[in-house]
Amino acid sequence: MRQLRKDPVVDRWVIIASERGRRLRMVRPPEEQEAGPCPFCPGNEDKTPPEIAAFRPPGTGPNTSGWWTRVVPNKFPALQIEGDLDRAGEGVYDVMNGIGAHEVIIECPQHDDRVQTVDERQFGEILWMYKERYIDLKRDDRFRYILIFKNRGRVAGASLPHPHSQLIATPVVPRRVVEELRGARTYFHLKERCVFCDIAREEINYAGRTVVVSDGFVAFVPFAPRFPFEIWLMPRKHRSTFERITRDEVDDLAHVFRETLLRLSRALAEPPYNYMLHTSPCRESDNEYYHWHIEITPRLLEVTGFEWGTGFYVNPTAPEDAASYLREVEL
Amino acid sequence: MRQLRKDPVVDRWVIIASERGRRLRMVRPPEEQEAGPCPFCPGNEDKTPPEIAAFRPPGTGPNTSGWWTRVVPNKFPALQIEGDLDRAGEGVYDVMNGIGAHEVIIECPQHDDRVQTVDERQFGEILWMYKERYIDLKRDDRFRYILIFKNRGRVAGASLPHPHSQLIATPVVPRRVVEELRGARTYFHLKERCVFCDIAREEINYAGRTVVVSDGFVAFVPFAPRFPFEIWLMPRKHRSTFERITRDEVDDLAHVFRETLLRLSRALAEPPYNYMLHTSPCRESDNEYYHWHIEITPRLLEVTGFEWGTGFYVNPTAPEDAASYLREVEL
Repeated sequence: MRQLRKDPVVDRWVIIASERGRRLRMVRPPEEQEAGPCPFCPGNEDKTPPEIAAFRPPGTGPNTSGWWTRVVPNKFPALQIEGDLDRAGEGVYDVMNGIGAHEVIIECPQHDDRVQTVDERQFGEILWMYKERYIDLKRDDRFRYILIFKNRGRVAGASLPHPHSQLIATPVVPRRVVEELRGARTYFHLKERCVFCDIAREEINYAGRTVVVSDGFVAFVPFAPRFPFEIWLMPRKHRSTFERITRDEVDDLAHVFRETLLRLSRALAEPPYNYMLHTSPCRESDNEYYHWHIEITPRLLEVTGFEWGTGFYVNPTAPEDAASYLREVEL
Repeated sequence: MRQLRKDPVVDRWVIIASERGRRLRMVRPPEEQEAGPCPFCPGNEDKTPPEIAAFRPPGTGPNTSGWWTRVVPNKFPALQIEGDLDRAGEGVYDVMNGIGAHEVIIECPQHDDRVQTVDERQFGEILWMYKERYIDLKRDDRFRYILIFKNRGRVAGASLPHPHSQLIATPVVPRRVVEELRGARTYFHLKERCVFCDIAREEINYAGRTVVVSDGFVAFVPFAPRFPFEIWLMPRKHRSTFERITRDEVDDLAHVFRETLLRLSRALAEPPYNYMLHTSPCRESDNEYYHWHIEITPRLLEVTGFEWGTGFYVNPTAPEDAASYLREVEL
């Protein structure tokens, strides 16, 4: 079953991606998922579904070695690419069939998931691949939102250690993004300024929460972070849409992003983390109120019932302390 | 530092509860927190802050043994009880000082955290203590919301295995509750019915997602659950406010709630879980649109970057499968 179901109280869509006769799949210890050779390593290209895209030397064929960044469909997709969008009611509830894309971006040939495995140039290639996947998938008008994210470490949800990011394209705009858009629109109506532009300016002026700053980008610990050592990274100038990023901007971003992750890894001894790229929805690409950004969330503490129950996070680390520690760590 | 800070984009309040010179507290392995005798066991009453309330035999003094349910302040509170509410701006941001209550409800004298440790009568006593704490704390007009929740197992955020719940009273209504209230109000305006009443009726009629049903309560796997084996438990009749529960209703709830937890424990081999009690905010106790309920969320899967990034959950277990499994498990 691949189905999108909507919670009738808070309008939250949930993907039900169950497999017949495997109702207890989640109880299986995660170790089992990792038997056998790594499907993301060069030489094992036949262990993934056929590749969607790759950066590889001219003359090498798809699904052979030689690539430096490679994109394949997720073998266990949360959503499936084939089919039309159908919406229906079920009693008092709403459902939609589970159409979408779920891809894996294999970031580099090396199996080692430490930041220093990839240099700045290679980091730029990964970001460029993100851009190309956005542009390609935006052509499919069934999709309303495309999210790129990374889970690093088992605690953060990674089932394989080989460095990889994921992409999910969904037929609805996800709830968290809707909330951000709503908040950003309200702020814009009130002040005629982008709230993210104001935040970037405030953080650069104050400087007590910044981690890495370049001409074009700023990485900082946000004023009200949910998690210890949470970091946001955003363009300093107004940019609503990630996929319009230029080659120069990608080079700059690669430097800031990689150094930020490196500082985090050094400061906290290679912590598990997630990052996710928030950009404007497919159908409102150019706008004055929203500003693409990356949220990096280390997974250092368990989220408790209080946080689930309220959306009210308790963070034991002051953001100013976290930022100064990240700035001071030796690289 | 105990401070409430507001995210300027999505209006989410975060509690910054840091301690001077302990900026890396969260990196300490959780095992360390558990050295020494259990402070919640009878005979160790001097190892907790002085008790706030207890059910104990007449003639026994506070902070002595003999109690069967005992409430103490949290030794490491997220919010502090003393002080006035102050709101202020800080650059483009909003802050409030961290006023609130953070209590621990020690559920029973026994150290064993399995459901069968407490019988139905004792379970009723725990629920009655919840009610009494709500009523007591609602008198403090600095508080806008009171949340009772339980973390069971280390993965769910429990730092001590002795059965306990927690209570946090906050000077703002938490975001998740605001969203539920907003959704419930919109539904009421549209249909002049409570959305939770409609859900309870639908679930009882359909019966394919129910787990335990009594005269007064229904426990079911919701139509769009975020997590495998998530369960909601609610009164079948419209009740906006938990603390108005009667003794008869508590007895009925104790039966349904305990059996639900027992089925969950048997089905999934004592899983870590959270539960939380959602009720109306302190200042809108009686209303037609909101309906108190308990959300039980087993912690079987890691939450990944996709879920954090989008609020869009992927659940690999169909709720109908989970419910039928829970109904069929032998007790």
